[in-house]
Amino acid sequence: MAKLYFRYGAMGSSKTANAIMVWYNYQERCKKALLIKPGVDTRDGEYRIRSRSGLVANCILFDQIDWNAVRAHEYDCLIIDEAQFLSTEQVDQLLPIVDEFDIPVICYGLKTDFRGEFFPGSARLLARADTIEEVKTICWCGRKATNNARLDGVGGITKVGEQVVLGASDKYIGLCRKHWLVGDPGPGLRAEDLARGAVPGVCGCAADGEDEEDEEI
Amino acid sequence: MAKLYFRYGAMGSSKTANAIMVWYNYQERCKKALLIKPGVDTRDGEYRIRSRSGLVANCILFDQIDWNAVRAHEYDCLIIDEAQFLSTEQVDQLLPIVDEFDIPVICYGLKTDFRGEFFPGSARLLARADTIEEVKTICWCGRKATNNARLDGVGGITKVGEQVVLGASDKYIGLCRKHWLVGDPGPGLRAEDLARGAVPGVCGCAADGEDEEDEEI
Amino acid sequence: MAKLYFRYGAMGSSKTANAIMVWYNYQERCKKALLIKPGVDTRDGEYRIRSRSGLVANCILFDQIDWNAVRAHEYDCLIIDEAQFLSTEQVDQLLPIVDEFDIPVICYGLKTDFRGEFFPGSARLLARADTIEEVKTICWCGRKATNNARLDGVGGITKVGEQVVLGASDKYIGLCRKHWLVGDPGPGLRAEDLARGAVPGVCGCAADGEDEEDEEI
Amino acid sequence: MAKLYFRYGAMGSSKTANAIMVWYNYQERCKKALLIKPGVDTRDGEYRIRSRSGLVANCILFDQIDWNAVRAHEYDCLIIDEAQFLSTEQVDQLLPIVDEFDIPVICYGLKTDFRGEFFPGSARLLARADTIEEVKTICWCGRKATNNARLDGVGGITKVGEQVVLGASDKYIGLCRKHWLVGDPGPGLRAEDLARGAVPGVCGCAADGEDEEDEEI
Repeated sequence: MAKLYFRYGAMGSSKTANAIMVWYNYQERCKKALLIKPGVDTRDGEYRIRSRSGLVANCILFDQIDWNAVRAHEYDCLIIDEAQFLSTEQVDQLLPIVDEFDIPVICYGLKTDFRGEFFPGSARLLARADTIEEVKTICWCGRKATNNARLDGVGGITKVGEQVVLGASDKYIGLCRKHWLVGDPGPGLRAEDLARGAVPGVCGCAADGEDEEDEEI
Repeated sequence: MAKLYFRYGAMGSSKTANAIMVWYNYQERCKKALLIKPGVDTRDGEYRIRSRSGLVANCILFDQIDWNAVRAHEYDCLIIDEAQFLSTEQVDQLLPIVDEFDIPVICYGLKTDFRGEFFPGSARLLARADTIEEVKTICWCGRKATNNARLDGVGGITKVGEQVVLGASDKYIGLCRKHWLVGDPGPGLRAEDLARGAVPGVCGCAADGEDEEDEEI
Repeated sequence: MAKLYFRYGAMGSSKTANAIMVWYNYQERCKKALLIKPGVDTRDGEYRIRSRSGLVANCILFDQIDWNAVRAHEYDCLIIDEAQFLSTEQVDQLLPIVDEFDIPVICYGLKTDFRGEFFPGSARLLARADTIEEVKTICWCGRKATNNARLDGVGGITKVGEQVVLGASDKYIGLCRKHWLVGDPGPGLRAEDLARGAVPGVCGCAADGEDEEDEEI
Repeated sequence: MAKLYFRYGAMGSSKTANAIMVWYNYQERCKKALLIKPGVDTRDGEYRIRSRSGLVANCILFDQIDWNAVRAHEYDCLIIDEAQFLSTEQVDQLLPIVDEFDIPVICYGLKTDFRGEFFPGSARLLARADTIEEVKTICWCGRKATNNARLDGVGGITKVGEQVVLGASDKYIGLCRKHWLVGDPGPGLRAEDLARGAVPGVCGCAADGEDEEDEEI
């Protein structure tokens, strides 16, 4: 009895790396898992998904799924990254694949946007999934990051605007609910830090205008 | 660091019994947990919650919460049953209790209604809770029951109508997604069973018009 | 594909109440779940399991299981309470029931004894179960209780002695690891509390020699 | 309140990749997580951990931990890979780090060896951890892999021998309990496959003596 999984997590919680690892584990067992992403963000002209930590894998777009091949059991599992961008109808298309064709479908995605509202795909997945699991990461304070914040560029976070802004230079970070509610992006990103010339790095910390070697992988 | 918990489960998954047991465990440790239910359904004139299995405990209505007492830490925990009936605003009132006053809040409720749509309280809790956990039960087929069905009285289930019908004699049951989607309420509740005079019992099975001793507790 | 579940929890975490509720949920769906307890403790001459919160249900002893009936699928589920008292061999007897006969087996039990060592049944279940889940409760400090302490009667806890002492008047409580390690049973049970005449109640709190109404169910 | 986590999983379940990702997520938040492995297997002369999928990160050996630095909160988190190889005493050394110094410790490791017995570190972690979580992967049959099998090289699996054989050319795979119990390593690895000249690949499948392009990352 296959299941529809929704594995949600905040920005920076390694959802994509997890998607690739699950796909990799299927490959290792000579099973065929199909990696999929919604067709929303194809600016890079590539059919790839890429984790922050450096894992890369080829994928197809949701609209390219060959449903006849799926129904013919040519795949042992469907894995969908950025599943928050699926439409309600696309999520519903997955249900008979699980229920009638007994093929597990594993969806990774954000739960809520920077305003704290559901993405359409997330809402439908939360309503329809058999199993809802969290991919965890931490806020700068050490608590679990559960919310996604859009930095406003001047030391705070913004909660208004379009849900999806492709190509926007806005930066998103995961925060715990408390710091998302009060709008505290953490040390290095606050107004006083920016005012004294701090340059936020990948890590959300401020470089304080100095050169620093990056020890990360 | 306290958390806001949303423990969701289908009809008949022992959510109320779990709420009472958590309350009981606090009592046993000489801690004060406050049992709460939304003010929607007070037909019985009682401030009680009652599990199908027979556990009963006193509670107050959400609107009766003495927020000053809560903020003064007179309670070690708030436990809310039938939390799907909370409004968005009521859920939001709970957030500072958790984040600022460090008091855990544990909410039990349905995730979706018989139409497959979120209840307002459930949607907000799914969006805001720190921890989302499932209280599980089974469909008649043995799979996990994840959906809630309203029986139409003639052997099928209905997916249209008001979300909440107080005092309605409609019967609800938990089904797996597959059987909810196809509208199969299971043996004893199908049209052919009703046609031959079957009388659905508490368990959803048909008594076949015969007297039967009920061996359940 | 059925599973062998081990649902472990500290003293006072409502394991028995959960076992009864799962059994009840099967009954409600007209499915037959068999409630079982090991044959270790039958002093009360009854084939019953009883939760602290007042739920009671009939059960059989492990040695009374009619394996032919089980293999003939006369039961939809086996539920075993106090599973820490199963022997290694008894746990192994359950494996083909799950794997070959596709019948879920749900075991509730303690993980470790008051000395911090596994019970035989718990060790085997941890090693063999498909799914390991925790039934949670709290320490007097508010942290999760993960360890089981035997009160020494003079304000501390003891970590030496026989694993099982039937009929012993020793009192057990669940504590978080920290308070189990340092041996602090909490307010009302400490030496200074006992010295001033405190009488530990069910809740582990001291009655201070005064009459108090018990507001628990 | 920090926790001691034990995240167990069968061979090939991406435990090391998960350890590296958690470490990476701390780095990204400008927090310092210390990657650690037991000193058992240092054949490669390197202080690195390496996932099958290609992630690599520097680490230190358990014996190299500077406990004063840890107690001085120079690290926000300790992450231990291959934690099954820790001794009982080494696990116990971690407890005050969590309980007194409030530093989370996350241990990744196997639960049981190829014989189905606990590793010493796993037994102690199962007995002492605050939170026990599973890192999942699949058996060749599609069920969850929960057991670890040592291939005997002639189409079966072996359940006798030393727990750890460093540098052994034995191959290990994860299997579900059923296939571990009956000793079926799956298609491509069975005696009949090997007899007809099949050469087991990384994935456990047989190449049938033919050249095949490997499409994996």
